[in-house]
Amino acid sequence: MPNPIKRTVFFISDGTGLTVEALGHSLLTQFEDIEFKQIRIPFLDSIEQAQNAVSHINAQGEADGMRPIIFTTLVDQSLAAIVHQADAFCLSYFDTYLAPLEAELGVKSSHTVGRSHGTADSSDYKKRIEAINYTLAHDDGITDNGLEEADVILVAVSRCGKTPTSLYLAMQFGLKAANFPLIPEDFDRGRLPGTLERHRSKLFGLTIQPERLHQIREERRAGSKYAALPNCRFEVAEAEKMMRREGIRWLDSSTKSIEEISTTILQELKLR
Amino acid sequence: MPNPIKRTVFFISDGTGLTVEALGHSLLTQFEDIEFKQIRIPFLDSIEQAQNAVSHINAQGEADGMRPIIFTTLVDQSLAAIVHQADAFCLSYFDTYLAPLEAELGVKSSHTVGRSHGTADSSDYKKRIEAINYTLAHDDGITDNGLEEADVILVAVSRCGKTPTSLYLAMQFGLKAANFPLIPEDFDRGRLPGTLERHRSKLFGLTIQPERLHQIREERRAGSKYAALPNCRFEVAEAEKMMRREGIRWLDSSTKSIEEISTTILQELKLR
Repeated sequence: MPNPIKRTVFFISDGTGLTVEALGHSLLTQFEDIEFKQIRIPFLDSIEQAQNAVSHINAQGEADGMRPIIFTTLVDQSLAAIVHQADAFCLSYFDTYLAPLEAELGVKSSHTVGRSHGTADSSDYKKRIEAINYTLAHDDGITDNGLEEADVILVAVSRCGKTPTSLYLAMQFGLKAANFPLIPEDFDRGRLPGTLERHRSKLFGLTIQPERLHQIREERRAGSKYAALPNCRFEVAEAEKMMRREGIRWLDSSTKSIEEISTTILQELKLR
Repeated sequence: MPNPIKRTVFFISDGTGLTVEALGHSLLTQFEDIEFKQIRIPFLDSIEQAQNAVSHINAQGEADGMRPIIFTTLVDQSLAAIVHQADAFCLSYFDTYLAPLEAELGVKSSHTVGRSHGTADSSDYKKRIEAINYTLAHDDGITDNGLEEADVILVAVSRCGKTPTSLYLAMQFGLKAANFPLIPEDFDRGRLPGTLERHRSKLFGLTIQPERLHQIREERRAGSKYAALPNCRFEVAEAEKMMRREGIRWLDSSTKSIEEISTTILQELKLR
C-alpha cells in the first residue's frame, strides 16, 4: 500500500466556523483515500488576525509540501481578500454565491457579519435555553407536571437514545421534549401510563434492535437480567406491540445518529 | 412602507438537511429586507421523492408568483438532475465545489451519500453519547467523582449558562464537560473549592453582566435576595476576583450564544 495522500484543510470564519466546517466536512467525506488534517480558525475579525492566518496557512503548506485547502465563509470582503493571498486552494462560500443570489433577489446584500446562532437576548435564543431547561426537568419521566407544555414526548425502553435525542431537539430546534421510559409494569398492565394517554398526539416512540440494546446495556450492567439478551428481546417486542396498538409513530434508532432521529421526529410530528 | 418581498426557500438534502440549512441561512441573513419562508426536505433518496419535491416546489412557485430558491447538497447526480428541473433558482453545493476539489486533489470523489453526523456504531458517535451521559451526571456540581475524566470543568455563579454550554460541548464535540456553581461560601473562604484545585488546568469560567444576571434570575425567583441586583453585582464581582486570583481563563457570556461560548472554550483550552 502506498502512503495515503495527506492534505491540510483550514476552516475560516468570522463566527464559530461550525457551519463552514460541517459543509467542508460533507465534501471531504467524498474523498475517502485522502487523510485530511483539519484546523478551524473561528472569530477572525481583524486585519491582524487575517494576516496571522495567512502566515499559519503558508507555514503549514511549507511543512506539508502541498498547498493547504481553505473553506471560508468570511463576509467582510477586505478580510477575505487578505486570506485569499495565502498560497492555498480557497473555496469561498460568500464569493461564490452572494453575487448570483443578489441578482436573483434583485437587492444588494448587507455584507454584515452574521449571528447565525442568534444573540443571547433574541427571543429565539431564549426559547432554546428554556427548552433545554424544560427538557432536563422532564428527562426519564422525572415528573408528569407541565406535560401540556411539551412539544414532543418520547417513549422507549431504557437505553434507546431518549435523553440525547430530547436534548438535541431542545438545543437545536428549541423544542420542549419530555421523555418517558417504558417499563415492564407498563407491559403487564397492557396499556400506556395514564399520564401519557392524555398527550397521545405528542408521543413518539424509539425502538432498537434487541442485540444492540443488549450490547449497550451490558456496558452499563454486565451480566444483569436487565442487560440479558432474552430480556432485551422481550422488552423491545412488548414496546413495539404497545406502540402499534396505541397508534404511536416510532422509528428504530439502532443505526441512526441523534441528528437523523431528531430530524425525522420533526417531519413526522410536523413540528416545523 | 411597501410590503416586504417574500420568497420561499427549499433546503434539500439526502441527509438531515441541517448543514445545508445552516449554510443557506448564513447567506439569507445578508438580505434583511426580504421575508423568507423556509422549507426543509430531508432524507431525499429516491426518484419518486425527487419528483414529489419538484411538484412541491413548482406549486409553491405558482402560489408565490415568484420562483422559489433551492439550496441543495444532494450527492446523487441523478436525483440532483431531477430537482434541477424544478422552476426555481438552484444553488447546488456539490455541483459547484466537487469538480474543482477533485481537480485540486487529483482524485475522483466517491459520490457516496455522506453520513456526516456519524453512524450510531462509530467510535466517534459512541464518544459523543458517553460525553452526554458524563455531562448530565456532572451537572451543577452533583458529584466530585470522576473529575479526572473531564475534558473541561466550567465554573460560574448560578445562571451564567454553565449547563447549556456543557451539554453543547458534549453533544457537538464529544467532550466530557463537568460544571460547578460558585457559591457565596466559596467567596467567604477566599479560595477555590478543594476538589477543583486539583484540576485547575481544566477550569474555565463564565461571567455575565450583573444587570443581565438580575433579569434572568428574576424570571425564576422574582423578588428574592438571590435575584436582587446588589446581590448579583456582589456575586459577579467576587467570582471575577476569584478567577483572576486563581488564574482561571474566563469569558463574559452575556451576549454570546452557546455555540460561540463553546467554540471559544475549545480554542482557549486547545481542546481540539
